[in-house]
Amino acid sequence: MKAHIFLPFYWGVGSLFFLSFWGMAESEKLLVFPQDGSHWLSMRDVIEELSKKGHEIVVLVPEVNLLLKESKFYKRKLYPVSYPQAELDNRFEAFGHNLFAERSFLNKAWVEYWNVRLIIDMFFLNCDSLLKDPETIRYLEESQFDALFTDPALPCGMILAEHLSITSVYFFRGFPCALEHTMSRTPNPVSTIPRCYTAFSHQMTFYQRVINFLVNYLETLLFKDLYTKYLDIAADFLKKEVTLSSLYGQGSIWLLRYDFVFEYPRPIMPNMAFIGGINCKPRERLPQEFEAYVNASGEHGVVVFSLGSMVSEIPMTKAMEIAEALGTIPQTVLWRYTGKPPSNLAKNTKLVKWLPQNDLLAHPKTRAFITHAGSHGTYEGLCNGVPMVLMPLFGDQMDNAKRMESRGAGVILNVLEMTSDDLSKALKTVINDKSYKENIMRLSALHKDRPISPLDLAVFWVEFVMRNKGAPHLRAAAHDLNWIQYHSLDVIAFLLAIVLTVVLIAVKCLKFCFQKCFGKKEKAKKATKSKSH
Amino acid sequence: MKAHIFLPFYWGVGSLFFLSFWGMAESEKLLVFPQDGSHWLSMRDVIEELSKKGHEIVVLVPEVNLLLKESKFYKRKLYPVSYPQAELDNRFEAFGHNLFAERSFLNKAWVEYWNVRLIIDMFFLNCDSLLKDPETIRYLEESQFDALFTDPALPCGMILAEHLSITSVYFFRGFPCALEHTMSRTPNPVSTIPRCYTAFSHQMTFYQRVINFLVNYLETLLFKDLYTKYLDIAADFLKKEVTLSSLYGQGSIWLLRYDFVFEYPRPIMPNMAFIGGINCKPRERLPQEFEAYVNASGEHGVVVFSLGSMVSEIPMTKAMEIAEALGTIPQTVLWRYTGKPPSNLAKNTKLVKWLPQNDLLAHPKTRAFITHAGSHGTYEGLCNGVPMVLMPLFGDQMDNAKRMESRGAGVILNVLEMTSDDLSKALKTVINDKSYKENIMRLSALHKDRPISPLDLAVFWVEFVMRNKGAPHLRAAAHDLNWIQYHSLDVIAFLLAIVLTVVLIAVKCLKFCFQKCFGKKEKAKKATKSKSH
Repeated sequence: MKAHIFLPFYWGVGSLFFLSFWGMAESEKLLVFPQDGSHWLSMRDVIEELSKKGHEIVVLVPEVNLLLKESKFYKRKLYPVSYPQAELDNRFEAFGHNLFAERSFLNKAWVEYWNVRLIIDMFFLNCDSLLKDPETIRYLEESQFDALFTDPALPCGMILAEHLSITSVYFFRGFPCALEHTMSRTPNPVSTIPRCYTAFSHQMTFYQRVINFLVNYLETLLFKDLYTKYLDIAADFLKKEVTLSSLYGQGSIWLLRYDFVFEYPRPIMPNMAFIGGINCKPRERLPQEFEAYVNASGEHGVVVFSLGSMVSEIPMTKAMEIAEALGTIPQTVLWRYTGKPPSNLAKNTKLVKWLPQNDLLAHPKTRAFITHAGSHGTYEGLCNGVPMVLMPLFGDQMDNAKRMESRGAGVILNVLEMTSDDLSKALKTVINDKSYKENIMRLSALHKDRPISPLDLAVFWVEFVMRNKGAPHLRAAAHDLNWIQYHSLDVIAFLLAIVLTVVLIAVKCLKFCFQKCFGKKEKAKKATKSKSH
Repeated sequence: MKAHIFLPFYWGVGSLFFLSFWGMAESEKLLVFPQDGSHWLSMRDVIEELSKKGHEIVVLVPEVNLLLKESKFYKRKLYPVSYPQAELDNRFEAFGHNLFAERSFLNKAWVEYWNVRLIIDMFFLNCDSLLKDPETIRYLEESQFDALFTDPALPCGMILAEHLSITSVYFFRGFPCALEHTMSRTPNPVSTIPRCYTAFSHQMTFYQRVINFLVNYLETLLFKDLYTKYLDIAADFLKKEVTLSSLYGQGSIWLLRYDFVFEYPRPIMPNMAFIGGINCKPRERLPQEFEAYVNASGEHGVVVFSLGSMVSEIPMTKAMEIAEALGTIPQTVLWRYTGKPPSNLAKNTKLVKWLPQNDLLAHPKTRAFITHAGSHGTYEGLCNGVPMVLMPLFGDQMDNAKRMESRGAGVILNVLEMTSDDLSKALKTVINDKSYKENIMRLSALHKDRPISPLDLAVFWVEFVMRNKGAPHLRAAAHDLNWIQYHSLDVIAFLLAIVLTVVLIAVKCLKFCFQKCFGKKEKAKKATKSKSH
């Protein structure tokens, strides 16, 4: 810290200089507790940058995992889990299949809930195994980390941070809905902030506000359902009772993976930084295979199609409907698909096991993007200015899709109910109706028009927390108040009590005076009357 | 905007490059409506930067003014006012004198209120004159500005913006208290956000929360008192009724001249940017006179003393008390003072008509800063890491002072009541007790540890608003809801009505069924009874 005394000021000279001075000044040790799955991908980008700046990084990884692979940028610390790799693979496969299962309007939420639980329950098993593995815990205790960098969607990282007495930086997508608001004590008015799964905008009609109000209570139930068992293992492990509020309240900074071009404006807190679009990297040269496809596409260009890393196969009848629709457009379609090729695949459609999604979207010849509206994909479409056909499947995807559709940058299709014709029409609409391209380009320009890149911002705040050992000056006082105090109900009750007491005394006094004055007269009158009688 | 399509991304390469690309891309025309007085000083810094980047800037200036002087960086557009220069000078002189007038505990607020009104009433006269000057208004109408840059402490700029149909960037200190929260529709919980003049921190005791709760209502009265007459002239000028909410709600960005090292954490909105310390410039070489003083000060160094631009003279008895105290320390004291020198001035005390405050505070030989705790001075002390003796005089100064004192970075003195001995002790404490220096250095390091300098950030947002013609994507939906809707009271009433109706119908049904079932039995019973008799 003392370096500052001798430093000239860099205000105005360039903040990045200032930043890199700090970065080079000291190497710190960071513990990372990630969430397996696509959310890990952009967290990894931040870790790579931190590693390049000389910090030592240890990533806690369950020995059975999906995407948490080895890298030169960090050391993996593996911990044992209670199930084999096959179990993980089976669950993810079942998850993908269930997304396309027939469901009635009524049991939609129920099917979604149990499908998501398939995966989430496994993360709980991981947490339980980790906390019960003395070797890993001893290693963590001895390693003297400066901070924890974690995805707070589930509270395992926070239990570790509490045990190790280190502060955290949260890297969060904003789903489960409202978690960041509840846990950071940010006001979250139900009248202007749409709740998850409603697909409302911030400008709601009266009836939308009624639904939003009710959904708000379901959220609370969902939190209870997901997190209560973590509190049980936390109590066992920490040897004391903790609350979610006390666990999350120890975190210093929320790095939130959205921005306000995509998300609707809402109250925030000073310890939040917005890094939406962090996954949108500079365009790199396409691999030869894809370069060839794009070059061969002629004036019509290409359409990029991917349903994300969680879905690689879809039922054959659905695949054939999609293949039929793709054959009706003049563009070349690059479709990431690892299942059995549909027999009616048209000549313009190329199936690939993997595609360089961001680089393809950034190519000037890309005309449209068919996506499941995952947060990464949607931001890549937004950032690169590509109109979208959105086929949301689960989680936040319907809300993401609505945010794009409501801004005229895409068309939503229900993948379970759509016909081949619907898809064909949607594609032709977003490609040929110029307003879609204009809208997404306007949004893209706004999204990129910011004073500092999201990656630099994320790296800055992680380093800030490491070098300052937290950010207590940004901690809201609301963390120390209960619900009654926060809403000043105790103050109101106190003032009401005073007012009532004063009124009561005043009434008593008046009554007394009244009796004294008029009571005497009354008596006198009565006395006079009786005398006169 | 279209430039983006052909641009490679600069994420990761450096945001300032991106920024300067935009800056150079197009020159825009900015109207500035400032507030005369010290608040203008840091606004001017932003304007100079914008001018250097090629934007055309017109500053609206009353022909009688204090600090709004000519400059090569902007064009001044003078408008006539209804009073002479002497009136302005007299009022400011009276203002300064009144600060040192004797006051009882009870009439403290009253004296403060009327003293501030001395100045504020003149600003109202300015506004009235401006709106009634057809020549200036015609000039503004014809000038086709891209945006307005204004201090929103008083709403004259907003009336102009409404008339010219342009959007605004607000440059605001945060005083009058809560204005930015009320007008931007930011939740402002009275339980965790101390109100002006209370000098509370965000962690309040129960009784502090009671007082804060009550002061909150006084604020509303103050707003009404200050602003209602602006609404009257606005209605005359705009030929329609407007509300403060509709006027302020048209603004795009709030540039707030505080940060969260100084201020307590609180809910904010995405259209707020925090530029506290923007006045803290890189240290420049001291003028020869001051260089000589500092060099001659020896190992003890210097103390800088200024009560700000609004106070240049103080009553002689007070000045002599102060002079006596200053003589008791081994440091050289540089005192900005334009009044008659006190006869007991010690050898170590140098009176100067002006001093390069920031450059002196930035000098390693400066040991302490005696200040009135104005926002500029306090930030210069904070930024340069100089312990302070704080003598708040009016407005936000008591609150500023408390923020420094509560963090162990300064000592507060009541300038009206303090003795010579008090000042001497306070000075010795902040200079010799190392904790003050350590605390202010820690705060200073935190304050400067940010991803982008406040000046760059301010310039970025003004340019953002000019090039995008506003920032409607950051406008809170709360602006379109009334109080009842915002707090969901209509939704709650609706749901209660449904519940009550359902309960009522259920009760009626049950009653009906009960009567049908038991009524018959009763009849049957009665019939049987009567038969048996």
